[in-house]
Amino acid sequence: MKRVELIGVEGLPEVRPGDDIGQLISAHAAFASGDVLVVAQKVISKAEGRLVDLASIHASAEAKRIAERLIARPDPRMVQVVLNESVRVLRSERVLITETRHGYVCANAGVDHSNTGGRDTLTLLPVDPDASAHRLRDRLRELTGGELGVIISDTFGRPWRLGIINIALGVAGVPALVDLRGTLDDAGEPLHATVLAVADEIAASAGLVMGKTSRTPAVIARGLALEGRGSGRDLIRPAAEDLFR
Amino acid sequence: MKRVELIGVEGLPEVRPGDDIGQLISAHAAFASGDVLVVAQKVISKAEGRLVDLASIHASAEAKRIAERLIARPDPRMVQVVLNESVRVLRSERVLITETRHGYVCANAGVDHSNTGGRDTLTLLPVDPDASAHRLRDRLRELTGGELGVIISDTFGRPWRLGIINIALGVAGVPALVDLRGTLDDAGEPLHATVLAVADEIAASAGLVMGKTSRTPAVIARGLALEGRGSGRDLIRPAAEDLFR
Repeated sequence: MKRVELIGVEGLPEVRPGDDIGQLISAHAAFASGDVLVVAQKVISKAEGRLVDLASIHASAEAKRIAERLIARPDPRMVQVVLNESVRVLRSERVLITETRHGYVCANAGVDHSNTGGRDTLTLLPVDPDASAHRLRDRLRELTGGELGVIISDTFGRPWRLGIINIALGVAGVPALVDLRGTLDDAGEPLHATVLAVADEIAASAGLVMGKTSRTPAVIARGLALEGRGSGRDLIRPAAEDLFR
Repeated sequence: MKRVELIGVEGLPEVRPGDDIGQLISAHAAFASGDVLVVAQKVISKAEGRLVDLASIHASAEAKRIAERLIARPDPRMVQVVLNESVRVLRSERVLITETRHGYVCANAGVDHSNTGGRDTLTLLPVDPDASAHRLRDRLRELTGGELGVIISDTFGRPWRLGIINIALGVAGVPALVDLRGTLDDAGEPLHATVLAVADEIAASAGLVMGKTSRTPAVIARGLALEGRGSGRDLIRPAAEDLFR
């Protein structure tokens, strides 16, 4: 019987810039071969120092204008930080949806208020989530001797669905997409257009254990039988290919 | 330690119209209290007789015109069936994206070639996936005495992400959204705009065990501590509220 387990890694201390995340996690988890570790973007960003002190930001006229049109009435300096992280604004009425430098389309460019360091600190997405995932994977190999997969996740909204869902930003040591085109279904017919976003499904499953308020920023997914290696970039639909526009 | 298990229900026979899905599943699974059963839409549709014989369909001029513009070059009668299931066409160039009568925005209105009954049969989405979920839940209560949650799932594409992911169509006995607005985060700050699409995350996690070619059309999610009840409709973003348009 096929069985997958999702195990919360608990008891991690508050993460600060420069912390060795691999060390913190391996001290609170027992890994098995083939495990995939899903880590919330926020703790990676904190460890990597991807923090901005709001007091250091000057809001442009554009940021002030946008801030007034948003339901959440954010500090215009936060809007400025979002614009700094973005290459394109898709929507700035009621909510701020942009395309980040990585190519993600999401609310507020993934910029969030930090749980640490007071209310005037913001966290930014990692500069290169795939690189962050690979660094953590290498570090965990050093510390545990095991070959793990690593996914760095964040919660994103969706155009035609309500609520947010955990997705994969950075991927190391596991596939991001599993391409079943050309394989046969149960009746022996070829499967058409079936490319599974398996890293996103792993991130979503970890989201069930992470919750949002509980201090479970890392989850082990055990029992997945995955072949191949991918990248978080595999999951980004290029703007030119967006068939829904 | 927080732990969730995903257990595949295997060994189900090929499902045919009129089959008692609750009976088939309970004969192949051992449930525990609080389990959530995720069932692939296709077996529900087959049991409910939501099948169309292509030979009975006459393709309109519009269906023929659209079929020629699609990459997959589908049978124009299949396009006709998709149009019959839809209230609005969002895109008919290269791929066919419509809004179904339920309000789902997806490729081909969820219409798919059936694995059974030969290559000229199509499956349609259930007429009312929430009602299907409730019927199955009631039947499982009769058969097992247990209070289970039921989610009917299907794989959908996403506008800005590549690959398909399993999502929740019908929901019974579990929440669809978990609204954390007004609750406090780890630092005691109120969480803003945090509504988790928990039923979609459960469906995605089941997708990891279902795969696509293996005969695992049902998965038990065990260990979720969920409160409240929701509906699959809770997850559909009304067109007027689509902040991404």
